[in-house]
Amino acid sequence: MDTESTSTDPVPVPVTVIGLGLMGSALAAALLDRGHPVTVWNRSPEKARPLADRGARVAATPAEAVAASGLVLACVLDYDAVHTVLDPLADAAGLTGKALVNLTSGAPEQAEAMASWADKHGAGYLDGGIMTTPPGVGSPEMMFLYSGSDEVFRAHRPVLAALGDPMYLGSSPGLASLYDSALLGLMWATFSGWLHGTALVTSDGTAATDFTRIALRWLNGAVSGFLTTYAPQVDAGHYPGDDATVDVQIAAIGHLIHAAHARGIDNALPELIRSTMERAAAAGHGSDSYAGVIEVLRGPARR
Amino acid sequence: MDTESTSTDPVPVPVTVIGLGLMGSALAAALLDRGHPVTVWNRSPEKARPLADRGARVAATPAEAVAASGLVLACVLDYDAVHTVLDPLADAAGLTGKALVNLTSGAPEQAEAMASWADKHGAGYLDGGIMTTPPGVGSPEMMFLYSGSDEVFRAHRPVLAALGDPMYLGSSPGLASLYDSALLGLMWATFSGWLHGTALVTSDGTAATDFTRIALRWLNGAVSGFLTTYAPQVDAGHYPGDDATVDVQIAAIGHLIHAAHARGIDNALPELIRSTMERAAAAGHGSDSYAGVIEVLRGPARR
Repeated sequence: MDTESTSTDPVPVPVTVIGLGLMGSALAAALLDRGHPVTVWNRSPEKARPLADRGARVAATPAEAVAASGLVLACVLDYDAVHTVLDPLADAAGLTGKALVNLTSGAPEQAEAMASWADKHGAGYLDGGIMTTPPGVGSPEMMFLYSGSDEVFRAHRPVLAALGDPMYLGSSPGLASLYDSALLGLMWATFSGWLHGTALVTSDGTAATDFTRIALRWLNGAVSGFLTTYAPQVDAGHYPGDDATVDVQIAAIGHLIHAAHARGIDNALPELIRSTMERAAAAGHGSDSYAGVIEVLRGPARR
Repeated sequence: MDTESTSTDPVPVPVTVIGLGLMGSALAAALLDRGHPVTVWNRSPEKARPLADRGARVAATPAEAVAASGLVLACVLDYDAVHTVLDPLADAAGLTGKALVNLTSGAPEQAEAMASWADKHGAGYLDGGIMTTPPGVGSPEMMFLYSGSDEVFRAHRPVLAALGDPMYLGSSPGLASLYDSALLGLMWATFSGWLHGTALVTSDGTAATDFTRIALRWLNGAVSGFLTTYAPQVDAGHYPGDDATVDVQIAAIGHLIHAAHARGIDNALPELIRSTMERAAAAGHGSDSYAGVIEVLRGPARR
């Protein structure tokens, strides 16, 4: 491919962006900001106007858009929409020799199917997960997770770095999507625990901002330290509860549930956590660390 | 009090530690490490031996222990145990003029009652929450939360700094306990989300340590950024969903639930989070940020 670059300097590389929702538009804008020639296409063409004003070329058809660049980013509603847009031109050999980087949200199985489809049509395939919101695109602190073709990743890494920090997870195309879901799940759980705690302290007149300052230090300090300790325990399947056992935490969560109940706060989250810990204790993990709870989360289908 | 110090230098100050479980022993050891004369008492005296070997004076009775220092730290099983130990000597005026710092776990209401009790017996009272495990005691990175007498906190801050970073939350004695519960709840929720995500990715052969490295960067980067954005939204009671609405996240959590279900993983946590988001959407918060979900967590009892 003519557009390949292995340099870490930002060499201008033609890129096509398919799909100009908030996220697709942010991707195209970040590429323009780094000086790359960008061709865009969107089903409703008026979304392309702000990008055209910033120098993007607006293609009239997906085929024209894909023909313009060796590297094609797709960011549309779902995987069905990717097929709706790309199937006709793929059938006309329009993807042959292209690198397709699909940043559309979906399931690992969909990513695997699309990698096979791309391979059949002669395209290199990389599946991606964008671990930020549109305003965060372009920041080197934000993670973009990729899986699939190692060759496509290595060739286009310098261009992908315009979007965020590109991280390659492995050749299995579903990995980026799997990590994406797992990380979002961690985020929602953290949000939920933070909201419950915030509801608790604000009931007694503390400002959410005051609590959150301390909560962030807790999360980024001690809590992160626990996860660092627990991860190798999970890999080893052995969960020494040296400093805080499941049994001790079952007792401690009672204080939280009591205090929140007294303030009329919904306790479904801590009650679920307690009952899950109780199931772990009943299964023989009472003197394990919290990491031992994973044994009751995993189903019989564990591979 | 003779033992008061407002200097930030570690001036040796006599301290008494009541209760020598794992945590109480760690507190006494950290004080000895900083050169403070430490007197200890425990119901079963053999727990005092390792500390005696390191130079602690072992008192024969709680009254003798409390008489030895102006600053008394209590860290026992529960608030009832504090009363069992201290009531007799308090009734004999043995607490008069002392500063009592209670690091025993309990509920905010118990802290408030104990502050009144201490006041009645002429002692200054500070309630504390230890935001680390025994091995973390003595590290300046670990937070020790205090609430109650501002005077006791200011007078003894340099000594308390031997245990961890002393943070004063306010004069209401229950605050440290309330924060303690709220922060532990955040920790358990984060643990639970991390375990679910770890179960997901390890099902497909990824090591927990590999996932956790990325999970920590996510938690300490983007997720912390969201909480920083959301906290003032909670204080304002206005939750602009500029970058990620509840409705969008209800759709996204479906991918996680689907992927985890396919791998036989217990989905109670993401299903609870989804149903809570759906309740928030039904209550009119669908286009809010996730922070808007707090409106359905708070009960009618909100003060």
